[in-house]
Amino acid sequence: MEKLEQLYEGKAKKVYATNDPDFVIVDYKDDATAFNGEKKGTIVGKGVINNRLTNHFMKMLEENGIPTHFVKEISDRETVVKKVKIIMLEVIVRNIAAGSFSKRFGVKEGVILKQPSIEFSLKNDDLGDPLINTSHVLALGLASAEDIAKIKEYAFKVNALLKNYLLKFDIELVDFKLEFGKTSDGKIVLADEISPDTCRFWDVHTHEKLDKDRFRRNLGGEEHAYQEMLKRVIGD
Amino acid sequence: MEKLEQLYEGKAKKVYATNDPDFVIVDYKDDATAFNGEKKGTIVGKGVINNRLTNHFMKMLEENGIPTHFVKEISDRETVVKKVKIIMLEVIVRNIAAGSFSKRFGVKEGVILKQPSIEFSLKNDDLGDPLINTSHVLALGLASAEDIAKIKEYAFKVNALLKNYLLKFDIELVDFKLEFGKTSDGKIVLADEISPDTCRFWDVHTHEKLDKDRFRRNLGGEEHAYQEMLKRVIGD
Repeated sequence: MEKLEQLYEGKAKKVYATNDPDFVIVDYKDDATAFNGEKKGTIVGKGVINNRLTNHFMKMLEENGIPTHFVKEISDRETVVKKVKIIMLEVIVRNIAAGSFSKRFGVKEGVILKQPSIEFSLKNDDLGDPLINTSHVLALGLASAEDIAKIKEYAFKVNALLKNYLLKFDIELVDFKLEFGKTSDGKIVLADEISPDTCRFWDVHTHEKLDKDRFRRNLGGEEHAYQEMLKRVIGD
Repeated sequence: MEKLEQLYEGKAKKVYATNDPDFVIVDYKDDATAFNGEKKGTIVGKGVINNRLTNHFMKMLEENGIPTHFVKEISDRETVVKKVKIIMLEVIVRNIAAGSFSKRFGVKEGVILKQPSIEFSLKNDDLGDPLINTSHVLALGLASAEDIAKIKEYAFKVNALLKNYLLKFDIELVDFKLEFGKTSDGKIVLADEISPDTCRFWDVHTHEKLDKDRFRRNLGGEEHAYQEMLKRVIGD
């Protein structure tokens, strides 16, 4: 498969066309951003780690019945994925109160939720990715009721699988963001990435943060945190 | 029934105890506030109009199968209602994009929604009444799944009934806020008010605003708008 022209450059990844219209190549960068792009920086080695961790998780999920866009890792930073039309909703699943959830509802970070919660944000930087509920999505015709039901089903399944899987490595899955896309034949698949950029991972004993919050909150040690995640999950 | 000590003073109403523990008296004020109390003023005659309109709508809804807290109007500004424990969620139903919905999602005011939408806000002035979804409510244990299902069912029924009813008077029901409470025997009933303070009413032909947006947006003519609503719906 040939890598052709760049189709898109996002905050953390570039996407390239290939000579097959059903596939694209994702190329992970070391660039780090937070607060809707207001804070910018670099986390050395992040692109490699996020590429490898994402693919590792995608394979595990695929084996457990979640359809994903993953096809093949072709280098440390590059992966072939199915070309999808991204559904313009960020899907956030939470097990423990943290971040914007804690601030919004005045709930102390670390409080365990009575059951996992799910929320959608409209992917729109100009509007600041506003929170949107199912009824708004339907009222605005942004997705069908069937698609939303499928996305919720997959998101909760991903949560159960990933949470359980990470506990083996003494990692607590606090919350995470997913994105979904539709393939050319209309099938909904898990897309984007699953990494310390898009999840909150805490050490199960010390509650040490092993994710992008170290960068967001100027805690330092972000390179070490990402390496630690790679080491625990993949073993090198 | 005797009116006893004041239990509570809100932005637009006072609530008094009575000599029967199951009932309280609501007393409507002319005070107007907007933007979480940041803007303050007076709309002369508002208390009388909101009391009368609310009771009129509550009776119509009660006759059509919606349980409400309404008992008896005892003066122009005062009404006996069942004492309830308010469920700390504002319930907003929308038929047409306007106000915060338009701003949040970048949708022009006046756009007709593909289907009515419902949303909840956590009643908490310190947090700015944040938007909260069903899954958050359950994750935080703020209400049971059964209560939320009942509230959604009632809210959409109120919308259908009220929208249809108002069309007879050439009034378009754009959106509105409801509050629900639980009576001492655990039954969910519609509480609070249904008035130009809590609904957006537009003239069906001219789209003239007949509600508190005249005050919020400094359009002038708020007294006339409230009187017009009373005249069209009750006829005096």
